[in-house]
Amino acid sequence: MSKEMPYKIYLSEDEIPKYWYNVRADMKTDHSPMLHPGTLKPMTVDDMTPIFCTELARQELNATDRFIPIPEEVRNFYKMYRPSPVVRAYFLEKALGTPAKIFYKYEGGNTSGSHKLNSAIAQAYYAKEQGLKGVTTETGAGQWGTALSMACGYFGLDCKVFMVKCSAEQKPYRKAVMETYGATVVPSPSDTTEVGRKILAEFPGSTGSLGTAISEAVEKAVSSDGYRYVLGSVLNQVILHQTIIGQEAKAALEKVDIYPDIVIGCAGGGSNLGGLMAPFMADKLAGKKAPHFIAVEPASCPSLTRGRFAYDFCDTGKVTPLAKMYTLGSGFIPSPSHAGGLRYHGMSPILSELYHDGCLDEARAVEQTQVFEAAELFARVEGLLPAPESSHAIRVAIDEALKCKETGEEKSILFGLTGTGYFDLAAYTAYNNGTMTDYIPSDEDLERGFACIPKLPGIQD
Amino acid sequence: MSKEMPYKIYLSEDEIPKYWYNVRADMKTDHSPMLHPGTLKPMTVDDMTPIFCTELARQELNATDRFIPIPEEVRNFYKMYRPSPVVRAYFLEKALGTPAKIFYKYEGGNTSGSHKLNSAIAQAYYAKEQGLKGVTTETGAGQWGTALSMACGYFGLDCKVFMVKCSAEQKPYRKAVMETYGATVVPSPSDTTEVGRKILAEFPGSTGSLGTAISEAVEKAVSSDGYRYVLGSVLNQVILHQTIIGQEAKAALEKVDIYPDIVIGCAGGGSNLGGLMAPFMADKLAGKKAPHFIAVEPASCPSLTRGRFAYDFCDTGKVTPLAKMYTLGSGFIPSPSHAGGLRYHGMSPILSELYHDGCLDEARAVEQTQVFEAAELFARVEGLLPAPESSHAIRVAIDEALKCKETGEEKSILFGLTGTGYFDLAAYTAYNNGTMTDYIPSDEDLERGFACIPKLPGIQD
Repeated sequence: MSKEMPYKIYLSEDEIPKYWYNVRADMKTDHSPMLHPGTLKPMTVDDMTPIFCTELARQELNATDRFIPIPEEVRNFYKMYRPSPVVRAYFLEKALGTPAKIFYKYEGGNTSGSHKLNSAIAQAYYAKEQGLKGVTTETGAGQWGTALSMACGYFGLDCKVFMVKCSAEQKPYRKAVMETYGATVVPSPSDTTEVGRKILAEFPGSTGSLGTAISEAVEKAVSSDGYRYVLGSVLNQVILHQTIIGQEAKAALEKVDIYPDIVIGCAGGGSNLGGLMAPFMADKLAGKKAPHFIAVEPASCPSLTRGRFAYDFCDTGKVTPLAKMYTLGSGFIPSPSHAGGLRYHGMSPILSELYHDGCLDEARAVEQTQVFEAAELFARVEGLLPAPESSHAIRVAIDEALKCKETGEEKSILFGLTGTGYFDLAAYTAYNNGTMTDYIPSDEDLERGFACIPKLPGIQD
Repeated sequence: MSKEMPYKIYLSEDEIPKYWYNVRADMKTDHSPMLHPGTLKPMTVDDMTPIFCTELARQELNATDRFIPIPEEVRNFYKMYRPSPVVRAYFLEKALGTPAKIFYKYEGGNTSGSHKLNSAIAQAYYAKEQGLKGVTTETGAGQWGTALSMACGYFGLDCKVFMVKCSAEQKPYRKAVMETYGATVVPSPSDTTEVGRKILAEFPGSTGSLGTAISEAVEKAVSSDGYRYVLGSVLNQVILHQTIIGQEAKAALEKVDIYPDIVIGCAGGGSNLGGLMAPFMADKLAGKKAPHFIAVEPASCPSLTRGRFAYDFCDTGKVTPLAKMYTLGSGFIPSPSHAGGLRYHGMSPILSELYHDGCLDEARAVEQTQVFEAAELFARVEGLLPAPESSHAIRVAIDEALKCKETGEEKSILFGLTGTGYFDLAAYTAYNNGTMTDYIPSDEDLERGFACIPKLPGIQD
């Protein structure tokens, strides 16, 4: 085992980035603008402020400022759990017998258990600065809801989380953590919104969906005085905040003279991969040497690998603006895959554009049992129980490292380990018991989803 | 907020201690020897080797070597998750408005979720070195079983965990983690041992106890070829391994010119507090300036504050050697307090002797609802969800910091934060719902326990 490099590469607290990096400022083609669902005109800050915090609406539309200063209070909060380490996966390399160097950026070490906190604390800060009473949001797997609850607890903001009903029932402890941080958790669909009541009247036994929970959270925000809606992925502002991951990773690797050959991230809405790859993408966009970027998605919800690049709604209820993105259609119903955080029909407009332009080199869809096989190997040799979402990246990192074993190449592989698997033990149990199954949607399943993509006269047919 | 000191004080991996520190070498009075339950003579290495790994039996009886080298393979494993940080609790200080400086040594950042891994990996290493097939153990709350499963998974050792039946049922996810690491989890009492079958015949509905699980694990080890029994607390060897906590804490605080005025740890079997305070205790035993040491135990299981200093069995089945310790009697039945890791009738012989001699200055018993009040405040302001066990130390750290607020003293307080609360969310839910109760045993309850303390002719009456 090589001794020249430590296992964990830490930056000092002074080295926590002072700016978020806005990759849009460097993109050759900016993504197509979000459209107002009524007028089909590009959204303006004024269109957005009834829903979003004002500063966050500005960040959402900001395509020109390369660096956005991180507010002092947010940086102080970051110091509670950042810089997060880049870990050299020596034990995994040894277990695989690969000449590749494998590194992972670990974002699960904070109490919320995932990278979501990086954006949650920023969004809560701007809500507080604006003098709001609170925020609303939705959560599926629970990572985002937990992170936002922590952030709101810290700033003394009220936090209403619409949690997909089946998740709330399957993961009572996720609910308990959010409540410990002072949040109100409402199983969705609920009778607290118009949208929810309508759905319950039509489908009394509905167990909910992320799309419905978004619709409820948006309605609650716009109908409550002093509240705004916040979202943990997909949006530009979220990718922006998550660039702290990539900036730290790049700086840490520079300390040990490593520039990665491959950068791998799981991709649901795209916030983690977007944040991890952004500063490396800057190199590529500047025409310099850059890594090969791989987005990993579940075969059960393959928006990049099998979706369409089109304008679509971000929610099932079709109340949100339209975004140009890779989408399976807002009516696509993902199978009950355990990687709840990756069950989203669309993909960040930034990542979608980068993929469309060939800058994000590759997307790969992997099946769940392969993912858990990788997760369990990783847990045993690296001592860290990964979240199912993160394990998609582990799967592909292992596959790439095994290719290096065949070719003898000593590539440096960096992947994002976004969260812990502490709250996903029902899934691990299913895998251990052999009751976990794979699911790949048929072409007919996909066509049913695509049928929900709106036709927009003059924009898309 | 002071800026002179970082939030997290890290050592480099090179600074991971190379030796465990054996506090017995410096104690003015060594603890009374463990006695063979048959002969009532002091246990020898030969007496112990049928039950324990040979090297661990030697460590158990070693009262003279001040420093025991940490094997290279164990140090490499430590590098996966160590050095663990000392964190300056700036946010807690601010919330309390105290002039005190509060520091905590955080041991919950590894996947097993607690400090138990420090000893588990050492014990698994020696078992592997001895060429054993596997080890047996018991677990109550599950922290030790999880840590040992991880350690055995790493070395490819078989691991049989007897888990108190009610815990196995209440905490299915703890069981799932252990199984993910390849361990076999047997709810205790079970029909796989004589002891278990006897108890099940007598009490078919028994939900188990730690004492019974110990008896089963010991029986399974001595009756299986190539197996030994391992234990996660109480024993000298465990305190020895856990001194890595205190050594790292002391070295980290020296980097910021801090010598703590108060050192606080929760105490169930004593491994965490013993390990945290050992290098500071060395100062005291050498007649130098030393902190005020406080052991915190649950009011429901008050071995130091209300127990007797006497020879007693370590298990309910009375198959283990006798140890001189503070004990509530091996037949004492702790209330179903949520801090499962602190529900033990006895206390480490080393800590017991140090407390008896006045070197461990103070023991304090705290009630569960006060503990969760502190835990919740801590979780909200410091962003870290603590285990109920650890939260006993948080309670007293807060109490001491509030005293400083009254007196204006700028004391430096160090406490051990031993684990995460991820697996204790049922307890948090009970606290949030207002259904959590306190329990203080009556004098009659204690007398019933004391009646089980054996009379040993010529040794104790």
